[in-house]
Amino acid sequence: MRHSRESPLPHEPSPTGLFVSDHTGITAEIIGKSLLSQYPDEAFATESLPFVDSQEKAQNAASHIREVWKQTSVRPFVFSSLTDPDARAALNASEALVMDIYGQFLGMMTAEIGRPATPAKGKFHAIGDQDNYTSRIDALNFSLATDDGMALKYDRADLILVGVSRSGKTPTSLYMAMQYGLCVANYPLTPEHFDRFELPSVLRPHLKKVRGLTLTPTRLSQIRAERRPNSEYASLETCKQELNAAEQMMRSAGIPVLDSTTRSVEEIAALLRQSLTNPTVQRPA
Amino acid sequence: MRHSRESPLPHEPSPTGLFVSDHTGITAEIIGKSLLSQYPDEAFATESLPFVDSQEKAQNAASHIREVWKQTSVRPFVFSSLTDPDARAALNASEALVMDIYGQFLGMMTAEIGRPATPAKGKFHAIGDQDNYTSRIDALNFSLATDDGMALKYDRADLILVGVSRSGKTPTSLYMAMQYGLCVANYPLTPEHFDRFELPSVLRPHLKKVRGLTLTPTRLSQIRAERRPNSEYASLETCKQELNAAEQMMRSAGIPVLDSTTRSVEEIAALLRQSLTNPTVQRPA
Repeated sequence: MRHSRESPLPHEPSPTGLFVSDHTGITAEIIGKSLLSQYPDEAFATESLPFVDSQEKAQNAASHIREVWKQTSVRPFVFSSLTDPDARAALNASEALVMDIYGQFLGMMTAEIGRPATPAKGKFHAIGDQDNYTSRIDALNFSLATDDGMALKYDRADLILVGVSRSGKTPTSLYMAMQYGLCVANYPLTPEHFDRFELPSVLRPHLKKVRGLTLTPTRLSQIRAERRPNSEYASLETCKQELNAAEQMMRSAGIPVLDSTTRSVEEIAALLRQSLTNPTVQRPA
Repeated sequence: MRHSRESPLPHEPSPTGLFVSDHTGITAEIIGKSLLSQYPDEAFATESLPFVDSQEKAQNAASHIREVWKQTSVRPFVFSSLTDPDARAALNASEALVMDIYGQFLGMMTAEIGRPATPAKGKFHAIGDQDNYTSRIDALNFSLATDDGMALKYDRADLILVGVSRSGKTPTSLYMAMQYGLCVANYPLTPEHFDRFELPSVLRPHLKKVRGLTLTPTRLSQIRAERRPNSEYASLETCKQELNAAEQMMRSAGIPVLDSTTRSVEEIAALLRQSLTNPTVQRPA
C-alpha cells in the first residue's frame, strides 16, 4: 500500500535488492552490493535467490519478486546473473528493475568476437573449472599448513608474509589462497628474533618473495587486548617495542612493508599481489 | 600486424581481457572472468589493473590497453568497475570494447530512486564498510579457533559442520566465514565415535545448526592418499567403513547431509547457507 498524500514520508522507502543467480549467487551478490553501496543514504533490505537453474524456478523467483514489491510498495531492484535466455525473460516478466548482467554484456561480446557464447551455468565458480579450482584448494591447504611459521616449505611459496603477532598475516594468507590461488606462507617475528637483531635465517634464501605487515601500536594493542585483556602482550608499550624492532628488521633486510591499520584484508591482498612480478597477467594454457 | 590473406588462421586470436578497477579489482575480475567463461572455445589472456583511482591512472590504463591492442592485433575486452565519470570517460577513450558496469546500471538505478548516487570508490570491500568487515574477520577468527573440534563455543556458532577427516569441513568453514561473515565451527567424526555408535554429546544441544558433509569412498581415498600415501587411513576399505558409519550416525540424528564429491567449496557454501533459516535475507540496520 502506498502511504497517503496527507502524511507524506520525508522520502520513499528504499527498494529491496534481490540477487538472482542460476548458481551460487556470488557474482550477482558482489555486483549488486557494490552498486547498492553507491547510495549510502538508502537503507536497502537485500535477499539472495541462488540456484535458479530452471524455467520454473525463474518463474517462481519472478512471483517472489512481485510479492516483495506488493509487500514493500516499492519496485524492487533485481541483480541477475542468469545466463539462460528463457529464464532471463521469465525474470524480466516480474517488471521489477532488472540489472541483467549477462543480457547487457554478452551481446556486446558476441557481436565483437563473431562467435556465439555457450552459456554454462555458473561456470566460473563450478568444479568444472577444475584447474583453477584445484589450485585454489591446494593453495588454501598450503597456507593452512604453513601458518604461523609451521612447515617451512618456502620453495613452493609464492609469497611469505612476516610481521609481529596479530598483524593480520593469517587472514591475508587465507584470503589470497582462496581468492587468487596463491601459496602464501606466513612467519611470525617474535621478541626472540628481536633480541638477536637478525631476520630468521629460514627467510633469507627467499627474500624476494617476503613481504611485511605492520600497523599502529594503538591498533595492535586493541586487537591483542581482545584476545588477552590486560596482558603485557597487549600493552601499548610492548606493542610499540615489537613494532619498532620488527619494522627496523624488515627495513634493513630490504623487505617491502605494508601498513594494514586502515586497510581491509581484500585491499592488503590486492596490494601484495600487485607487488609480486606481474601475477595479475594470466596467459591461456 | 594482421595475419595475411594467403594463410588465414582457422579463427582470429582471442581478445585480451583486462579488469580495471579503482579499488581491489575483485568485482571487475569476478564479472569479467564469469563473462569470459561463457566462451569456452576461446583462449583469453587476462590482466588485472587494480587501484586506478585518479584521472591520470585512468589515462595510463587506457594507454596500456591501446598498447595491448597493438601487440595482439585484437581489440581488447575491458571489464571496468570504475565509478568516477571522468575516469570512465578516459578509459572509454581507449576505444577498446569496454564493459562499463557502473555506467550501465547506475543510470538505471538513479532514474528509479530519483536521488543521485554518491560514488565511493570500492566501498563494498573497503574497511569503511566497518560493520560488515569486522563481522567477517570475527567470523574468520571464530572458524579458525573452532576448527577440527577445538574450542567448543557452539552457542555463538551459526553453523557446525560434521564429517569424517578430509571431507572438506575446513575449507568450507573458512570460505563461509570470509564470504558471508557466518561463524562456522567444524567437528570431526572419528572411529572413536563410531565404536560408541553415537553422535558426540557436545553436538546434541545444537542439532538444529549441525550439517554433515560426505563424499564417495573413492574420492576420499584419493584425497587422503595425497596426505598419507599407502596408509591404512587412506585405504579404500577404511574410507568406506568410516563414511558408512558417519552417514548412518548423521542420518539417525536427523542431520541434513551434503555430498561434496562433485561440488566446489563455493557451491557447498551456498547450499549450506540456503539450508539455514533465511540467512540470505538481510534487513537494513
